[in-house]
Amino acid sequence: MHGFDVYDTTMRDGAQQQGINLSVADKLTIARHLDDLGVTHIEGGWPGANPNDTEFFARAAQELQLRTATLAAFGATRRAGGSAATDPQVTALLDAGTPVVTLVAKSHVGHVERALKTTREENLAMIADTVAHLVAHGRTVVVDTEHFFDGYLLDRDYALACVSAAVEAGADCVALCDTNGGMLPGQVHDAVADVIASTGARVGIHCHNDTGCAVASSMAAVEAGATHVQGTINGYGERTGNADLVTVVANLQLKKGMDLVEPYRLQDATRIAHAISEVTNFPPFSRQPYVGAGAFAHKAGLHASAIKVDPDLYQHIDPKDVGNDMRMLVSDMAGRASIELKSREFGVDLAGDDEALARVLARVKELEQRGYTFDAADASFELLLRRLLGEEDLELARIESWRIMTDARGGEDALSEATVKVHAGGQRIVATGEGNGPVNALDEALRQAFGVVYPEIAELELIDYRVRILDAAHGTDAITRVLIETSDGASSWTTVGVAGNIVEASWEALLDGITYGLRRAGVDPR
Amino acid sequence: MHGFDVYDTTMRDGAQQQGINLSVADKLTIARHLDDLGVTHIEGGWPGANPNDTEFFARAAQELQLRTATLAAFGATRRAGGSAATDPQVTALLDAGTPVVTLVAKSHVGHVERALKTTREENLAMIADTVAHLVAHGRTVVVDTEHFFDGYLLDRDYALACVSAAVEAGADCVALCDTNGGMLPGQVHDAVADVIASTGARVGIHCHNDTGCAVASSMAAVEAGATHVQGTINGYGERTGNADLVTVVANLQLKKGMDLVEPYRLQDATRIAHAISEVTNFPPFSRQPYVGAGAFAHKAGLHASAIKVDPDLYQHIDPKDVGNDMRMLVSDMAGRASIELKSREFGVDLAGDDEALARVLARVKELEQRGYTFDAADASFELLLRRLLGEEDLELARIESWRIMTDARGGEDALSEATVKVHAGGQRIVATGEGNGPVNALDEALRQAFGVVYPEIAELELIDYRVRILDAAHGTDAITRVLIETSDGASSWTTVGVAGNIVEASWEALLDGITYGLRRAGVDPR
Repeated sequence: MHGFDVYDTTMRDGAQQQGINLSVADKLTIARHLDDLGVTHIEGGWPGANPNDTEFFARAAQELQLRTATLAAFGATRRAGGSAATDPQVTALLDAGTPVVTLVAKSHVGHVERALKTTREENLAMIADTVAHLVAHGRTVVVDTEHFFDGYLLDRDYALACVSAAVEAGADCVALCDTNGGMLPGQVHDAVADVIASTGARVGIHCHNDTGCAVASSMAAVEAGATHVQGTINGYGERTGNADLVTVVANLQLKKGMDLVEPYRLQDATRIAHAISEVTNFPPFSRQPYVGAGAFAHKAGLHASAIKVDPDLYQHIDPKDVGNDMRMLVSDMAGRASIELKSREFGVDLAGDDEALARVLARVKELEQRGYTFDAADASFELLLRRLLGEEDLELARIESWRIMTDARGGEDALSEATVKVHAGGQRIVATGEGNGPVNALDEALRQAFGVVYPEIAELELIDYRVRILDAAHGTDAITRVLIETSDGASSWTTVGVAGNIVEASWEALLDGITYGLRRAGVDPR
Repeated sequence: MHGFDVYDTTMRDGAQQQGINLSVADKLTIARHLDDLGVTHIEGGWPGANPNDTEFFARAAQELQLRTATLAAFGATRRAGGSAATDPQVTALLDAGTPVVTLVAKSHVGHVERALKTTREENLAMIADTVAHLVAHGRTVVVDTEHFFDGYLLDRDYALACVSAAVEAGADCVALCDTNGGMLPGQVHDAVADVIASTGARVGIHCHNDTGCAVASSMAAVEAGATHVQGTINGYGERTGNADLVTVVANLQLKKGMDLVEPYRLQDATRIAHAISEVTNFPPFSRQPYVGAGAFAHKAGLHASAIKVDPDLYQHIDPKDVGNDMRMLVSDMAGRASIELKSREFGVDLAGDDEALARVLARVKELEQRGYTFDAADASFELLLRRLLGEEDLELARIESWRIMTDARGGEDALSEATVKVHAGGQRIVATGEGNGPVNALDEALRQAFGVVYPEIAELELIDYRVRILDAAHGTDAITRVLIETSDGASSWTTVGVAGNIVEASWEALLDGITYGLRRAGVDPR
């Protein structure tokens, strides 16, 4: 839709999140994903503020062929008492060479006086001068008014004066920022409506999630007339994060009928959100709206039979609209209907095969009684199903034995060493791995042993390991459940192991994770 | 505030989340935490639907002394064509013996006809009969109208008729459920206002987060007149989860001035949310509003000095109001006052000894940064304190080394064998223990070795063992935290160990647990 900005700030404000550190190459990758998603603006960073961001804009000009998005450079208004034309930070913004420049400006009297330590008038001049200078150099200028809503509640006139200063100097859009994130949607709605009515500005919105309302407040701003929404992929950002841009776009497009990105691009949203989480190295959040692995997952046996008949009764949208899928979770509440549905996901049609369904159901119940959980371990369930149905050639090796030694002496860190003995490819393979923990060592040994015959194992990586002690009242004598997530770089799957011995449970989940990954990659037993 | 229900459904609807499996003991623990938080209602589960929930209500009646909360049992309306009085599922609800019963009822014509496969009239009769039957038996009845909002948009009259049927039969409150989670706050607001105006019902709200608006929609319902809010701790729940009850309560109380729970209870919210995540074994979400580790964290840089001078400019509330802290990874423990207080509990008076307090504080902070947690490990904290203050005769043995071997061959169960070498009582003692897991074997070997010089160790028993993988993004290479509870039959204490190697972390917690127990029994080094 022309005239509505879907403005991504993952690489600038999102990167403020604790634990996110993006290299220039990471940023180029993220920018390509954002362009695929169809955002209108990609904020690349703060040129001049750090060398990484300066280099990003230089390389972006050479290497990025954006099809739908426009690059924006982020920076601040000129220094108090200086001039925009000679301010090195402003000059760096022009040097970035982006069509759009976004300026952060103060609009809260307390911040002007106590943090910026200047006068109200000088702050207005800083906004006007810097905007005019950039516009004179052919830039489209967005002004991010920091702490706008808190400032508006404290001194409405001054906050509006800041907006007007930007508009009169030629800013294309003034984005009102809830920098501290404390606003509720009603407050955002009313302030946005007032700003538009009072100043005539084209208004944008930038929310944080400190009240759990970032998405709703962004929607409220759009209802009040905002035509520019800022957010980040996966809601990354400082503290509780920014508004999740995919959720906002999906809500506006699928619920409010706005035409923001081409439908086929939104249908790629799940893949894109997960791909970006690979770059930031934060595991995807399973409960994330629209794109989470659990967003269209159903557990209760109660509903499963009805879902089979009429999925629309149990889904708020068609998951395909955001590139996601309905998943049935197999759990102790499972009935035949959910096992049948689940099997169909794997391309196994059990409809009408009552005997097989009963056999699978009985086995699932027996295993869940022993501590297994399949609702979080799809891959283990698929392997179980295929084994129960007598599928041949599933196992890639025969395991002879394994052992692990962990030792520590004299206050040194403990070290683990594992040896596995397997038969595959007509050979007996003995391999040893070291690690800083028993599971680490076992993983290493298993990879080395399999690698002799299945070099494809190099593509697989263990990305998550979780342990749960069941029935903890028995102390160390209890049952241990291990969940392992394995990735091939493009997607991931989870396997489960259960045993009295934590190492044995880990072994089971590790081996299944590797077997599943290799079989899925089309590897047959050698 | 009288007449406003803060209704928790963590143990029922929250437990629908993928990967959550609660034992009866887990549920009793969660219920105690919820009572501490000050919720008015705790929904304990569905008696009769599974044996676990039935047992929970039986044990709750014996073991739970709730101070602020009332227990609710959840179930469904009677079967189509049957009678409430003879319906075994309804009878199980009465047998649970809770003051409140919450009934799920259909209010969406499509679900009545296609999923329930009955008539509109029979569904109304099912609601009326079941409510009346429970009310006649002295129960306060809440009716959860499933798929209410979708049903309301499809056939408003029928949805309202379902509400009226419940009200006229004596229901205390009708909670409107956005079961599929697809609503936006405006739709929720308008429907709630209409229901109240049209039926006179006391209305409640039950939201899911599929549009990222569960909190905002819950707030919108309250603005429209709802006086009962349902949600879960940490937003647990099916798909994208339920409304996060702590966020909703904090918003209503701190932002809207409502008086829902006593302030000192809300000031315990962060601890409670994290304690419940220990039970579900889902790592706390750092970006969670109010209670997340990152909710009041600031990345050093631009604002750092301004934040120090004027924190209110950068915080939407005082973090103490929800028991959180402005800095990352610093727990409640890490204030001088609480360390002084805690030390006094152990008979160590640090009042006025600024140097010692600073030393202890620095060490606690350093260890918490590395993954230790002392909130749940008093015994480890006491040992740490005594070691830091240079107390002599604390260690009962010198550890030379330990090692563990775990092996499995030919599909047999894995076995572990541990050897420890210690010096105590003027001897070098070498002892070996076997077990069905490495920690079990280590515990056995350690007991045998200590037992040579300290026969008092026979009184001590390891009663709980919990493992948490920290920073799960690193897979098996991550940091592991182990909590061990040891008992002498009369009381118990908890110790913590942290290491890259799970066995090493276990060793640390085991050894501290035994040292603490023996010292406490008055055993001196021999």
